[in-house]
Amino acid sequence: MTYCLGLNLDAGLVLASDSRTSAGIDYVTSFSKLHCFQPAEDRIFILLSAGNLATTQEVVNRIRRDLDQARRGEPGPSLLSPTYLFEAAEYVGRVSLAVQNDHRQALSLAGVSVETTLILGGQIAGQSHGLYLIYPQGNYIAASPETPYLQIGENKYGKPALDRIARPGLGLDDAARLALVSLEATSRSNLTVGPPYEVAVYPAGALALARRLKFDADDPTLKAVTNSWNRGIQDVFERLPRFDWEGQSDLLPRQEGLDDSRA
Amino acid sequence: MTYCLGLNLDAGLVLASDSRTSAGIDYVTSFSKLHCFQPAEDRIFILLSAGNLATTQEVVNRIRRDLDQARRGEPGPSLLSPTYLFEAAEYVGRVSLAVQNDHRQALSLAGVSVETTLILGGQIAGQSHGLYLIYPQGNYIAASPETPYLQIGENKYGKPALDRIARPGLGLDDAARLALVSLEATSRSNLTVGPPYEVAVYPAGALALARRLKFDADDPTLKAVTNSWNRGIQDVFERLPRFDWEGQSDLLPRQEGLDDSRA
Repeated sequence: MTYCLGLNLDAGLVLASDSRTSAGIDYVTSFSKLHCFQPAEDRIFILLSAGNLATTQEVVNRIRRDLDQARRGEPGPSLLSPTYLFEAAEYVGRVSLAVQNDHRQALSLAGVSVETTLILGGQIAGQSHGLYLIYPQGNYIAASPETPYLQIGENKYGKPALDRIARPGLGLDDAARLALVSLEATSRSNLTVGPPYEVAVYPAGALALARRLKFDADDPTLKAVTNSWNRGIQDVFERLPRFDWEGQSDLLPRQEGLDDSRA
Repeated sequence: MTYCLGLNLDAGLVLASDSRTSAGIDYVTSFSKLHCFQPAEDRIFILLSAGNLATTQEVVNRIRRDLDQARRGEPGPSLLSPTYLFEAAEYVGRVSLAVQNDHRQALSLAGVSVETTLILGGQIAGQSHGLYLIYPQGNYIAASPETPYLQIGENKYGKPALDRIARPGLGLDDAARLALVSLEATSRSNLTVGPPYEVAVYPAGALALARRLKFDADDPTLKAVTNSWNRGIQDVFERLPRFDWEGQSDLLPRQEGLDDSRA
C-alpha cells in the first residue's frame, strides 16, 4: 500500500508520501511517489501517486515526454499548456486514464488493478496555489478551506490527526510536522506503509519548492518528532479525567439489570 | 457503519460499541450493539456485533431461545453447554452462520450483505477470561498478549490510539477511557459512527459485570474525556520539536535539483 497526503494552506502547500511499494507481500521495495515538475518559470506542479506502480511510472514518463515534445515546438497538450491549475488536473487525469486504458484488459485478465489515484498540487503565476485529487477515472476534486487536506492510499489511520489539527491557517513547518505525524500513525498501524517519507514544502507565490525533504527510518529529526508525539499522547492519556467512581474498588457487588439472556 | 472493540487485559475485559445504525443514509437510527448474557452463576458472555442489523438481532434472539429451551430441559446446544470459552465462540459462530444461510439468497438478490461480524468476551468458572472475534463464516480468532484488542466494523480510525496505548497490564478504568478515546477518534473521522457509546467492564474472575455504562453525546464524563484528549493532542502537536531551519524564513532562494520534469 501507499499513503500520501497534501495540505492546502493559506501559506502554501505541503505534500508528503511514504515510499513503500509492494507487488505482493514478498516483493516490498521503496519507490518515490512524489514528483515535482517545474517546466517554466511561471508554473510548478507536485504530483503524488497511489495505486499500480507501473501505471504511475508511465503517467510520469508520458508527462515528461509531452513536455519534451512541447519544448521542441511539437503540438499537443502538456503541463506547459494550462492557463488554470484545474486544466493541469484535467490534463493529468486524461494522461492517467489513457495509460490505464492501454493496460486495463491485460491486467484485468491477471486479476490486477490498473488504477492509480493522484494528488496534484501547484501554482501558475497570477493565480492561487491549489490542490487536487485526481480519481482513476480522470475526474478530480479540489481541497477547500473546510477540508484543507487530501489523502490517497491507506488514508484512514492518519485521518484523525488531520481532522484534529489541519486548518488553513497552519504554518508550512507545522504542516510538514503534521504530515510526518499522520504518516507515522499510518505506519504504526499498517506494515505496508513506511519510511522513507518524502515531504515537499511550497510557499504560496514562490513558484519554487522551499524544501524537498526525505526522512529515512533512522533520521534524527523524524525520530525526535515521532518519539515526542508518541510520548506526548501517552502523557495525555494518563492525564485524562477519571470516572466518578475511581478510587473505589472495581469489584463491586453484583448488579441487577446486567443480564440480556432472557428472551 | 459500526465500530466495536474489546480489550483482553490481565485485570479483565472491556467491551465497547457505538450505537449508530444506518440502513441507507436516510435511515440512521440508534440500536444497542452490546449484549450481555449471564445464563448461570458460573458463566458470563458479552457480545458485540457489526454488520447486518437484522442478522445480528436474529442471532441474539436465537441465542436467547436456545437458552429458554435448555432451561426447560429440551435438548440442543446453548450458552449453557460450553465447558470452554472457545466452545461458546464456536456455538455463536454456528448460530450466526445459520441465520446468514437462511437469508443469504434473498439478500443477495437485493444486493445487500447478510454478514455480521461478532466479538465475544466472557468467562466460564475455573478458566481464564477470554475474547474472540467471530467471522461471518463462523470461525474465530482470540485476542492475545501481543494483540490484546479486537475490533469490528469501521476499525481503522480508532486503531492508532489502541496501537500506542493498549497493553495487557492496563487497568480496567484506563481501558474504558481508551475505548472512549478510540470511539471518539472514529466518530470524528466518520459520520456513520457516533454516540451513544456503550461500555461493559468485566473484572477477571467476577463472573458478573462491574459496570455497564452508556454515554450519550452530551454526557459530562464523555465530554470531559474527549475534550481533554483533543486539547491534549493539540498541545502535544504544538510542543513537537522544531526542524533545524525553523526561525529562518520559509522563502528560501530557489534551489537546484528540485525539478523532475526532464525525461
